[in-house]
Amino acid sequence: MSDPKTLAAPVAPGGTVGILGGGQLGRMLALAAARLGLKTHIYCDDAEAPAFHVSAAHTVAKFEDKDALAAFAKACDVVTLEFENVPAGSVEHVAQFVPAYPGARALRITQDRFDEKSFVQSIGLTTPRFVAIDTAADAAGWLKDFGGRGVLKTRRFGYDGKGQAKPKSADEAKAAFENFKGAPSILEAFIDFDFEASVIAARGRDGSFAAYDPPENHHENHILRRSTVPGRLTPAQGDAAKAIARKIATALDYTGVFAVELFVLKDGSLLVNEIAPRVHNSGHWTIEACAVSQFEQHIRAVCGWPLGDPARHCDAVMTNIIGEEANAWETYAKRPGGLHLYGKLEARPGRKMGHFTDVSPLTKA
Amino acid sequence: MSDPKTLAAPVAPGGTVGILGGGQLGRMLALAAARLGLKTHIYCDDAEAPAFHVSAAHTVAKFEDKDALAAFAKACDVVTLEFENVPAGSVEHVAQFVPAYPGARALRITQDRFDEKSFVQSIGLTTPRFVAIDTAADAAGWLKDFGGRGVLKTRRFGYDGKGQAKPKSADEAKAAFENFKGAPSILEAFIDFDFEASVIAARGRDGSFAAYDPPENHHENHILRRSTVPGRLTPAQGDAAKAIARKIATALDYTGVFAVELFVLKDGSLLVNEIAPRVHNSGHWTIEACAVSQFEQHIRAVCGWPLGDPARHCDAVMTNIIGEEANAWETYAKRPGGLHLYGKLEARPGRKMGHFTDVSPLTKA
Repeated sequence: MSDPKTLAAPVAPGGTVGILGGGQLGRMLALAAARLGLKTHIYCDDAEAPAFHVSAAHTVAKFEDKDALAAFAKACDVVTLEFENVPAGSVEHVAQFVPAYPGARALRITQDRFDEKSFVQSIGLTTPRFVAIDTAADAAGWLKDFGGRGVLKTRRFGYDGKGQAKPKSADEAKAAFENFKGAPSILEAFIDFDFEASVIAARGRDGSFAAYDPPENHHENHILRRSTVPGRLTPAQGDAAKAIARKIATALDYTGVFAVELFVLKDGSLLVNEIAPRVHNSGHWTIEACAVSQFEQHIRAVCGWPLGDPARHCDAVMTNIIGEEANAWETYAKRPGGLHLYGKLEARPGRKMGHFTDVSPLTKA
Repeated sequence: MSDPKTLAAPVAPGGTVGILGGGQLGRMLALAAARLGLKTHIYCDDAEAPAFHVSAAHTVAKFEDKDALAAFAKACDVVTLEFENVPAGSVEHVAQFVPAYPGARALRITQDRFDEKSFVQSIGLTTPRFVAIDTAADAAGWLKDFGGRGVLKTRRFGYDGKGQAKPKSADEAKAAFENFKGAPSILEAFIDFDFEASVIAARGRDGSFAAYDPPENHHENHILRRSTVPGRLTPAQGDAAKAIARKIATALDYTGVFAVELFVLKDGSLLVNEIAPRVHNSGHWTIEACAVSQFEQHIRAVCGWPLGDPARHCDAVMTNIIGEEANAWETYAKRPGGLHLYGKLEARPGRKMGHFTDVSPLTKA
């Protein structure tokens, strides 16, 4: 628990929130900050970053550029991030000049799948069985030990299914590891889950905690397609998911919004799949369905404001708009519901271009 | 009705919406445009305009600067406005280079209280009795004719009660007119209404129409304090209010969002008080309560997109945060609901600094 005596003063309206990363999450964070009367300064290595268009200032520089990071930090009242692969060392560098959340420790742990799952187990939560894989021979050997099925993943830098394979034989396991160019990996047991879910929660600088209702998630080609709330989780499972999130946040002494991806098993139990130390795609429905969205909640948390009420005032189904689907923007615009387009220039295959949220009156709280 | 054959192509995602005016309405329009993947370019004579911080580009220049207006127009795919006192001639100038909505005719009519009320009556709708006042003697004489009570208002440039007086004697009427420095004015009959309401509606470039549920409005010191939806209007009154809005929009061949302020009389009838050719303070609750807010609806209308569904998915009460009330931002931040701060530097008395929306599950559609 943070010591309240050492807490920095909240960032007052008119202050500047620095955001490392300029993609759609940074863009939606900037829009949320603006609602609270805060300015944003976006730092990104991509000169076409979508978040630049909605921010008061921006810096184009590499995430390893210490001078640029220092100048950026000095121009901000607090710094946060929108993607988990910002080098932890860069966040540590920024934190010499200005408060930065989430902290480097939480980032370091969640940037490495082996460290993350080890951490989750160390605090008494359950993950799929996993083992570190450092050689092709390991991959082949452990796959056999796992019953001939498993998911091989690089320890670092994976997202949307990148750096993942599902080998079904020793040869496939070897080939997959070699395809990762020998990057340190883990093998996870294949989980025959009933469905997937996630919990989006926030922890304030002062240790306060708030969790949204956990959505049920549906993936296609390793990419989130749809989040539904309320989904198939029972109230007891919803409470269990929130308790898992609270335990993780407390153990990490975390500040900000984060997501915990869960497998819901056929026996009703929950397994922790992954932690994302940032706002999360499966929480986009909170823009429509809650008075304080996950984006505003994150801004509140890192700025030292009171956390907002996560209560849902309607039901929602969020569907991602992926790749060329965005060309049909006029068709989406005709549908009743919330259309969000991210201002990306090029509709590459698999690229998240926007999302659509169907809303309907509240059925169960 | 606009001729569909002459309609410009819609502004596609990635395009730029120019906004004349950079206050809170421009800011919330810019945030809504960003949600749709559109860029904004704000034009304002105030170098500290709050909307600048959330836009891709901005121009600081007088609204009468023809060169600056032309350069601005050429940088945009469509131009709109956020306050009704943009000179109609400036909009006509801009419209030589790029589509501009609403058009100069709608602006001219609604910028003059006498012309506006004459227009409303000419299409068969009812306003309070009114008469043009050009001299102090007129003011005194007509007040007597109105039974010794009335509201004297300058014909142009009034808002939030500025340029208004409620004389109760011939001497007070004279003094009020002289206090307006002889500006052309109107005298309106004093209306002993039951309550005030408004209807926020949109008309697309193609003549399509959509109206939100009319809120009940409560003013304090001539400034909107609170909008409540659902309010005390009956379903029949709600329908009548929407029909009034549709009649006005059609007769003006209007494009964009607009508001009609109404008096609800004790006998249940509705009088048209005022037309605002822009997004309106009494529609701010649509951010929380509708999938498509009035701000997004306006952007959709002027960009030639399909209008969004105006259905409400929850109940809402919007309360303005005025002047020094904004200093209590931490108290507001603790309340469940939607907090909006406008990024204004100075909390002057009577200045709209933000608003707060309480939301609750839908009680009646």
